[in-house]
Amino acid sequence: MLQLDDLDRAILRLLKEDARLTISELAERLNRPESTIHFRIKKLLEKGVIERYTIILGEELRPKAVALVYIQAETPIIEDFLEKYIHYIMKTLSILPNVLAVARSGRDGVVALVGEENEEKLERFINETIKVLPTLKKIEVMPLQEFDKGRDLIGFLVRV
Amino acid sequence: MLQLDDLDRAILRLLKEDARLTISELAERLNRPESTIHFRIKKLLEKGVIERYTIILGEELRPKAVALVYIQAETPIIEDFLEKYIHYIMKTLSILPNVLAVARSGRDGVVALVGEENEEKLERFINETIKVLPTLKKIEVMPLQEFDKGRDLIGFLVRV
Repeated sequence: MLQLDDLDRAILRLLKEDARLTISELAERLNRPESTIHFRIKKLLEKGVIERYTIILGEELRPKAVALVYIQAETPIIEDFLEKYIHYIMKTLSILPNVLAVARSGRDGVVALVGEENEEKLERFINETIKVLPTLKKIEVMPLQEFDKGRDLIGFLVRV
Repeated sequence: MLQLDDLDRAILRLLKEDARLTISELAERLNRPESTIHFRIKKLLEKGVIERYTIILGEELRPKAVALVYIQAETPIIEDFLEKYIHYIMKTLSILPNVLAVARSGRDGVVALVGEENEEKLERFINETIKVLPTLKKIEVMPLQEFDKGRDLIGFLVRV
């Protein structure tokens, strides 16, 4: 079982804010010796508490219009085919560059986060690429406007 | 307008995968002089193409049960109150630690990404904390199982 103490948590919080902070900057902020910080980060990486370091991309590269799409697959006559339908929908969506995330939802659903330059292109993408997928029963589009929490999500997911 | 060339994009892709790569490692992989890589990264930061560096937390700290919740606010008799309702719902959700993201959706909706240790706790949280919010008209819960794309989303959003 994973045991994190206050220092571990403080280090994680600071690195989440800015992973470019050096060992000596962290040591100064947390008022601990550099050797301690160094050791703790090493352990956090070894134990997989920190999975990896990454960058968040800025406003300009992010899609300006974003929506969540819930897709319900048709229930096939041969029930076993449902898995194939779901699998097909997920794979097809995943390879599209403007689909930022795809997850299974329940027995017969798929949720996708999609983004485009503007509302018009997003609507067209949903109508012309998603709604036409075979084996769909129902589709619900939830446009996302301002974020109140998790704002950087899009900058994290967007690809170049 | 933002102009990125192939080298910029290659640097961004590598840093997205692993932001701990050093200038000299990037230089070697991309077969360019270190000075070029250094200059490019400096520019990408200055222009805000790279917004910031962060860490992704591993499996153990992530909630095991995750769902998207779509909340539709009641339409008040005095139409102007709708903004207040929405604002109240978003603020209330945002301060909860197991709410990972909150966004406005359309005129009268809010979408939240919620996570808990297990299915049972997640259900209880949704029933006892979200469903009881006043001014709700409708709530739809979309549990999320395996991700096919954007898998690291939860490790990015989770707090310690």
